[in-house]
Amino acid sequence: MSALTNTAFRRLAFSKFTMLSQTSTLKIAASFSTTSVSRDKVLTLDSINSRVRDMEYAVRGALPIRAEQIEAELKTAHKYPFSQTVYCNIGNPQQLGQQPITFLRQVSALVDYPQLLAPENKDKTSLLFPQDAIERASQIMSVVGSSVGAYSGSTGYLKIRQDVADFIEARDGYPSNPANIQLTNGASGAVERVLELIVSNPDVGIMIPIPQYPLYTASLTRFGAHAVSYYLKEEEGWGMDIAGLSRALAESKAKGIDVRAIVVINPGNPTGGVLSEQNMRDIVTFCENQNLVILADEVYQTNIFAPLKRPFVSFKKVVSEMRSTVELFSFHSISKGMIGECGRRGGYLEMHNISDSVASILYKMASVSLCSNVLGQIAIDIMVNPPKPADPSFDQYNTEIDTIYKSLKSRSQKLCNAFNAQENISCQPAQGSMYLFPQINLPKKFLDFCSKNSKTPDEEYCMRMLESTGVCVVPGSGFGQLAGTWHFRCTFLPLEAHFDAFIASFDTFHHNFMNEFRD
Amino acid sequence: MSALTNTAFRRLAFSKFTMLSQTSTLKIAASFSTTSVSRDKVLTLDSINSRVRDMEYAVRGALPIRAEQIEAELKTAHKYPFSQTVYCNIGNPQQLGQQPITFLRQVSALVDYPQLLAPENKDKTSLLFPQDAIERASQIMSVVGSSVGAYSGSTGYLKIRQDVADFIEARDGYPSNPANIQLTNGASGAVERVLELIVSNPDVGIMIPIPQYPLYTASLTRFGAHAVSYYLKEEEGWGMDIAGLSRALAESKAKGIDVRAIVVINPGNPTGGVLSEQNMRDIVTFCENQNLVILADEVYQTNIFAPLKRPFVSFKKVVSEMRSTVELFSFHSISKGMIGECGRRGGYLEMHNISDSVASILYKMASVSLCSNVLGQIAIDIMVNPPKPADPSFDQYNTEIDTIYKSLKSRSQKLCNAFNAQENISCQPAQGSMYLFPQINLPKKFLDFCSKNSKTPDEEYCMRMLESTGVCVVPGSGFGQLAGTWHFRCTFLPLEAHFDAFIASFDTFHHNFMNEFRD
Repeated sequence: MSALTNTAFRRLAFSKFTMLSQTSTLKIAASFSTTSVSRDKVLTLDSINSRVRDMEYAVRGALPIRAEQIEAELKTAHKYPFSQTVYCNIGNPQQLGQQPITFLRQVSALVDYPQLLAPENKDKTSLLFPQDAIERASQIMSVVGSSVGAYSGSTGYLKIRQDVADFIEARDGYPSNPANIQLTNGASGAVERVLELIVSNPDVGIMIPIPQYPLYTASLTRFGAHAVSYYLKEEEGWGMDIAGLSRALAESKAKGIDVRAIVVINPGNPTGGVLSEQNMRDIVTFCENQNLVILADEVYQTNIFAPLKRPFVSFKKVVSEMRSTVELFSFHSISKGMIGECGRRGGYLEMHNISDSVASILYKMASVSLCSNVLGQIAIDIMVNPPKPADPSFDQYNTEIDTIYKSLKSRSQKLCNAFNAQENISCQPAQGSMYLFPQINLPKKFLDFCSKNSKTPDEEYCMRMLESTGVCVVPGSGFGQLAGTWHFRCTFLPLEAHFDAFIASFDTFHHNFMNEFRD
Repeated sequence: MSALTNTAFRRLAFSKFTMLSQTSTLKIAASFSTTSVSRDKVLTLDSINSRVRDMEYAVRGALPIRAEQIEAELKTAHKYPFSQTVYCNIGNPQQLGQQPITFLRQVSALVDYPQLLAPENKDKTSLLFPQDAIERASQIMSVVGSSVGAYSGSTGYLKIRQDVADFIEARDGYPSNPANIQLTNGASGAVERVLELIVSNPDVGIMIPIPQYPLYTASLTRFGAHAVSYYLKEEEGWGMDIAGLSRALAESKAKGIDVRAIVVINPGNPTGGVLSEQNMRDIVTFCENQNLVILADEVYQTNIFAPLKRPFVSFKKVVSEMRSTVELFSFHSISKGMIGECGRRGGYLEMHNISDSVASILYKMASVSLCSNVLGQIAIDIMVNPPKPADPSFDQYNTEIDTIYKSLKSRSQKLCNAFNAQENISCQPAQGSMYLFPQINLPKKFLDFCSKNSKTPDEEYCMRMLESTGVCVVPGSGFGQLAGTWHFRCTFLPLEAHFDAFIASFDTFHHNFMNEFRD
């Protein structure tokens, strides 16, 4: 590469066509070659890490891959009885048209291009941004010191962790310390970090709910630990059953498994269940007696649809109230709730009752990856510290949050009713989260068909739904389910405007399906 | 929690003080408690994952932790002979005052708050943003479809991966396929993913340069593999030595280590060396003969300071030119170069000669973490596809890039000269990257002092430098060095305006140090 092209290269691809013509050494068909050895690959399915090879992650498995194919085909041909695919396989609200929260985006844009805050642009910027967004952005710029383009400290900016701690303290009524908080790339990054910390050898087991969010089974396969399943009670709104926990634990211990921790997803994913406070107290007592660490996945803590009957209570609060010494990691995220900023990858974890020496190891783990993305950190800050009553954006912020909330609640009920109106389907109402997890009583004729054709029944049912309606859901087998029962997980995120059509297409599909396979 | 507080909670912390006074169940000192059991912790340094416990990562080790303490103390007391700490331990340009690239930030702000693109705001937005930034932002909005707040596909938006492929193709003159590209949270995330893929059992070894960027040793400890060291030749501008590679490989094989891959950091970190094309060809031949996968860390590819003598050549180009079948992963990032957007966590990897089945496993690994942050993806897009000659922002973009480049080059020379002017210090010039890695010939008197006081000599030297000057560098032992030699890594990132003072303070420190310990 000549000096000229090196300069061009620094300026990057703008001159790429010039580079192609100018640079004599460039050749698509190489003229220089050494002996071309025909070799076996070093990396094959047999030689690579079998633990990552064997991970399963159904949320982005066969169904969404097929949905993407169909989406591509729809652009050129009309060979399906629908005009678009609808991704109900994943809680991705803004993909389905949910609008971002204005204040969050205003602040983010201002810190992203801080010339907007410069005195010479003040008047022009004020035409486009409210005063409190400008002030908040200026405050954040003083927190980050120089630029959102710099690495923060390993676990995130202290001021943002302080705001998170204040939020937790106000939520629970118990102290929270920013030193116990790590800002992460989404809650997924936080969960993976903690599981990797805990799993020290292949005998370790972690209790997980069935059904569960497959991040957990995937990560346990990845880190080489046992997933010790406990079953949620569908008929009791997917509640937890201490007798079942004890049984699962005893069976695993009998096999020599060193059970260290329990994952609780509350509000539930994929179930939509919300635990009662009494149920949580029983779990804490169980964990104290059995020496288990609690991993509390609370990313749906604001998606609460029966607040009188089943309010959200954090494990941090319950553990604090019980003055328990049980070790607890809690997780939260900007991806869910009414914020729905999935693509921004912002999350946090809080440690409670974790020893300082272990906390310092978790800090070092964060250091190796340098820091979580700073704009995700800033979105966390807005989430935990939104506009206050006297601020210009207060009303708009709350109207946006409440509108999304009310609509989600109404859509969850509408979809649940629609499922329950179907032959052979029963569905627990969503007390929380973004999902319904209906049970389908699949006809024997269909089960026989699947058996003969080596199909997994719930996956085949969902695939047929996709091919008929364009709606992509995830089969229950991707989350785990009681043997002999069949479910699927479906978000209720499609916009209100499309919701009736979405329900009608499902109705038609299921009706036809039953006509084909009714016993 | 009452219905009222649940609503308040959805709206989040804005009403936290109200919540504290209204909610009768909140209590800082709990009135409810179960038996408080005094228990041993489940998680201790002995019970947790020993591999993550034993990782070392000097870039954020003892020195920067002490620097942060000093920084905090400086806010209230004047007990140090300097007024601020300067973080030369990490390549974090914008922390040290480097200005972000305007066009990148403009586009990012516009997609972040897309109301700025709405017809009703067009006139006002045009007062603050150039036309090409507005057009580019609109294009990106059509790529992301709905919102930068949605998850992208697991490996990133196809259009952005296509732009990366076009950039690589223009750079190298050989085809690149977006299906072989994954967008990641910085290059660190990409490197970690590939190492985890390759390391299948504790007998696996990966060759790494000494000195090396400690992400590699940390990750190999984490994944439980052998780090097989090969030494760079300091006296030859930190070049690679095939005889040394062969020796290191043979020794490891004799120990039963299954050596699978080699990490090459080019331009070098911490060394600042740039490999010659002939050296690279020899490495590829070596890897072909020895069945090794190449991991090419090329994040400093635009930080090239001797472009005539040592231009950057990618491994992808060399492997393609040689028609080699060697398996190759290459890494790049927005954190370095003249872009310097560290906090945004954008990176990518390209696979070359990797089998489809193995590539599909790497895809699944990306899926479990959902996607890399979308604003980081967009910054990658701007980096690989900047303004074109006819665009309004073309001149400003290139002026900004060139100004940073020229200043970095001049500062690297200035600092290198300053080091070489010192008694007992010799420093190779930076052919590339952001660092110098001077060798210090530490006096015997000092080595004896360290030995008596159980200090690591280079760490003690760097700690004294920090306490005297406020400048934080990283001891060579954090990167590895030939036994009996001592180095430190120092960025040349402090701004021009502070550079002379920065050099003068080092000069005084080293002079005093030598006066104290000269043999």
